[in-house]
Amino acid sequence: MKRRDLILGAGAAGIAATSKLKAQTKKTFKWKMVTTWPPNFPGLGTGAIRMAKSIEKASAGRIKIKIFGAGELVPAFEVFDYVSIGGAEMGHGAAYYWRGKTEATQIFTALPFGLNAMEMNGWLYYGGGLELYRELYDTFNLRPFPCGNSGCQMGGWFKKEINSVADLKGLKMRIPGFGGEVLRRNGGTPVAMPGGEIFTALQTGTIDAAEWIGPYNDLTFGMHKAAKNYYYPGWHEGGPTLECIVNKDAYSELPDDLKAIVDIATSATNDTMLAEFMARNAFALQQIKAMDDIKISPFPKDVMKAFKKSTEEIINEIVGRDERFAKIYRSYSDYKNTVEQWTKISEYALLKDRYE
Amino acid sequence: MKRRDLILGAGAAGIAATSKLKAQTKKTFKWKMVTTWPPNFPGLGTGAIRMAKSIEKASAGRIKIKIFGAGELVPAFEVFDYVSIGGAEMGHGAAYYWRGKTEATQIFTALPFGLNAMEMNGWLYYGGGLELYRELYDTFNLRPFPCGNSGCQMGGWFKKEINSVADLKGLKMRIPGFGGEVLRRNGGTPVAMPGGEIFTALQTGTIDAAEWIGPYNDLTFGMHKAAKNYYYPGWHEGGPTLECIVNKDAYSELPDDLKAIVDIATSATNDTMLAEFMARNAFALQQIKAMDDIKISPFPKDVMKAFKKSTEEIINEIVGRDERFAKIYRSYSDYKNTVEQWTKISEYALLKDRYE
Repeated sequence: MKRRDLILGAGAAGIAATSKLKAQTKKTFKWKMVTTWPPNFPGLGTGAIRMAKSIEKASAGRIKIKIFGAGELVPAFEVFDYVSIGGAEMGHGAAYYWRGKTEATQIFTALPFGLNAMEMNGWLYYGGGLELYRELYDTFNLRPFPCGNSGCQMGGWFKKEINSVADLKGLKMRIPGFGGEVLRRNGGTPVAMPGGEIFTALQTGTIDAAEWIGPYNDLTFGMHKAAKNYYYPGWHEGGPTLECIVNKDAYSELPDDLKAIVDIATSATNDTMLAEFMARNAFALQQIKAMDDIKISPFPKDVMKAFKKSTEEIINEIVGRDERFAKIYRSYSDYKNTVEQWTKISEYALLKDRYE
Repeated sequence: MKRRDLILGAGAAGIAATSKLKAQTKKTFKWKMVTTWPPNFPGLGTGAIRMAKSIEKASAGRIKIKIFGAGELVPAFEVFDYVSIGGAEMGHGAAYYWRGKTEATQIFTALPFGLNAMEMNGWLYYGGGLELYRELYDTFNLRPFPCGNSGCQMGGWFKKEINSVADLKGLKMRIPGFGGEVLRRNGGTPVAMPGGEIFTALQTGTIDAAEWIGPYNDLTFGMHKAAKNYYYPGWHEGGPTLECIVNKDAYSELPDDLKAIVDIATSATNDTMLAEFMARNAFALQQIKAMDDIKISPFPKDVMKAFKKSTEEIINEIVGRDERFAKIYRSYSDYKNTVEQWTKISEYALLKDRYE
């Protein structure tokens, strides 16, 4: 070989090496994330955005995520299907929105009188919950990640006081899903209505009551201007887990390092979103408490008892008719029976000492 | 220019481009992480290891972290100094171990009768706590990250029943730090002792009582074989935050993407470690409850009251003598007064309904 060929060889090799390295390290994944939240919705939407941005930053832009609020690309309730077919690679929302697909999904968000946020994370990560969650979503070509939690919510805003179960008779209340069915069984009329319509409906008297989230979001919506009785606790959502869903094909195309980045970015958001709700709900409650015309009250004991009874009935009915729900509920319920005993002598014992 | 020179030029450019790209993307940071935990210590040590491994994986090995348990490179209580001077780039432990450096550090772990884990995360991330934490550690050339939480701990194992404050008189108990001082003011004798010595000391009667962590770790230690009375709640540590500390120079040398990886990996560990303790404490408690000879009891009300009174006295004394503590405690305390009102009508109201 002549020197000239050697040089040519070195040059070609150099260029080839550069290209290969570029291909490995510079391959960019352009993803879309569709969410069930209005654009920049405080806490839930902004948490999803924070998660997406942290993936971009941690991957040095190798995953770029274009974020869409509800309705910007697909309506909120089409997020699941759209990510499932690969229209978008990623979605953010809550599993119980998909109970029309299969009733079991709601267990991965919250069941009325169920686990609180800390207990829920224990079940998901270390109690077998996440394996069941992934197994269920696998059939829809999706990989779910716990990705945020609002913590315990509020019971809702009521135009009139609720002093007993009798006061629920005929009550038109915006409360979707499982909670709505519980209300119906106790004489009320649940109304499904997207967030953006609640305030006006409550103010004009189209509905008599509405639950939304908690002090932070409720204050932003101005709910205190439409109704004056604010009830607690959020028996129907004691610590709902939000979810990030990733199209399975899109996830499996990622090299291992980017997979790991998605894994820890979603978990980090699970950490910080709950913290954000805890702090901002506390600050907002302080403002609401300072309003002279707002009455903050616990639901009467008989109402809570009636709601719990209906909840148990509904769960038993679903267990009876839906095998997938029954299997996942067994895991959830066994864990709940166990963790309740621990919470009782730890978190609860300390709080009881604090408040009594 | 002759063709040969052109080729030579292309070759050189190719090689130069390769080298530059390699330098950018292949620069490896070889870090050491020293921890205050025995090697592979369940929950705390394994959580720190999980965090380090996730950084390696997410960075595709661009940060490699060699992990050392307590005593393997430096003793547990030298972790802070060692990372501060750059002997290791990273450390994992708990801020209150460094109260000898400056008393304020303990606020970032836990104060007796203080915030629970969820409330603590709210303060740190969204209530100004983390800014104060970073400001304080900045003077030691360290960047702290919340990185795990054990949740509420247990009150400890006692050879004899505790029926009133009088039973604390002369009681030799392994309980370090702030909690130990509270015991001392109520007639007891606090003993400082590393984890590895507790079991034997309790079994042989060198001490009369010992607090360790919670059911999960206590069961592993075999504490139930050395004492039969297990008291709750862990009034002295209601939700202690663990910390990851990074040498500031080492952190600032990282490119932005690796900084982001460290940021989200520590937060993800803050998420999963609390979940692990929640679930594993629940499973372990179930085992302990099944033991016929173990009595699980709440501390008597007068004991809790006396502990709380001493806690307030001690805090007031430190506030009076230490400006840095006073400044940080003001933020903590203002937040606590606010968040307590929210926890009362959310988490606590739901738990009260569950248990009563």
